[in-house]
Amino acid sequence: MIVLPKYPGVSPLVVRRLPRYYRLLTELMKNGVERISSREFADMIGFTASQIRQDLNCFGGFGQQGYGYNVASLRAEIGRILSVDGNLPTILVGVGNLGLALANHVNFEYCGFQLLALFDESSSTVGKDINHWTVRHVSELTEFCTEHRPLAAVLCVPPSAVPDLVKKLMDLDVKCYWNFTQYDLSSLYRNEILVEDVQLADSLMTLSFQINEIL
Amino acid sequence: MIVLPKYPGVSPLVVRRLPRYYRLLTELMKNGVERISSREFADMIGFTASQIRQDLNCFGGFGQQGYGYNVASLRAEIGRILSVDGNLPTILVGVGNLGLALANHVNFEYCGFQLLALFDESSSTVGKDINHWTVRHVSELTEFCTEHRPLAAVLCVPPSAVPDLVKKLMDLDVKCYWNFTQYDLSSLYRNEILVEDVQLADSLMTLSFQINEIL
Repeated sequence: MIVLPKYPGVSPLVVRRLPRYYRLLTELMKNGVERISSREFADMIGFTASQIRQDLNCFGGFGQQGYGYNVASLRAEIGRILSVDGNLPTILVGVGNLGLALANHVNFEYCGFQLLALFDESSSTVGKDINHWTVRHVSELTEFCTEHRPLAAVLCVPPSAVPDLVKKLMDLDVKCYWNFTQYDLSSLYRNEILVEDVQLADSLMTLSFQINEIL
Repeated sequence: MIVLPKYPGVSPLVVRRLPRYYRLLTELMKNGVERISSREFADMIGFTASQIRQDLNCFGGFGQQGYGYNVASLRAEIGRILSVDGNLPTILVGVGNLGLALANHVNFEYCGFQLLALFDESSSTVGKDINHWTVRHVSELTEFCTEHRPLAAVLCVPPSAVPDLVKKLMDLDVKCYWNFTQYDLSSLYRNEILVEDVQLADSLMTLSFQINEIL
């Protein structure tokens, strides 16, 4: 995949911190806070003020020395950087408990995505109404993708189903994946696709390490 | 919380990479691979061999120059560092779709935890059998925790329910949380509790950023 980044040289770690800033700023706005010093904001987050300033400076910096941040405009700037106003056409494949939980509870539009359709292969699930989507059979994938051109797919299928499914989706020009399967997708098709992994077991093992550090 | 780490000075980023190593080594073992060079292992993961050697050196290093890694023993060592053989008593609160998905699909024992019980407050859920747990009413929390002394809780409740629930759990000596709520728990009780956040919206926004970088 040819990459011409809009923000060259920005560390992935900085990017990964932005959604948390965005979330906390959203919270502050809801509570009617109009302005916050970088020190107060840092205290909320548990970083140093200098760390936050450094992060934001990667994108131009938005505070005014001595005046702190305007909450609404900083939130808007970070939202713009994260492209949360995008409308990336997306499908979800695998409507088990996890797929169901994601379709019901994740606010895709808030994050810059438009969830177009859900797919499953189980006859007990296909045809069901979930939120405002009717679950389609995976055999309809080709026709659907050809017509609606999704860019991204949320994968909630068993790991064994991943290789064939992703090969098919790649052929249909779906190149971006939110991967909830335990399949190590980023190793398989490196440079050809873009993968954001949510490896729940990895997260739980990290917690195990941390707990055992202090036990 | 008084912290006397077993591995002082090891970066959280290194720790966060270990579960992936463990997962890939498990995969290799399943496929009958006995030995792997750091170069081959690095290629699988998409890091440099030197990065992997550096990570492992934080814990003593386990390869032998020119011989690569013994898959089974490296896996065992990493498992030991992550304490996956632990049996940390754990409860899950909030048995909606997401709680259900976690109870059904996450292999807690594989990650070092023993899931003792599930709790919910909805009359339509309490009493149901999920996997091999019967969902209990949250009003039983105090009695259950006093008797079984869980150390960790998986939180899958609505954000508004978090402050009261966590206050209660902290009083019952539950100090470690796998947090799936959108509530910013680590900001609230910093230094008093240990939190591993799974913020799905943050992950999805990170994907939005990455996609828009290349669009």
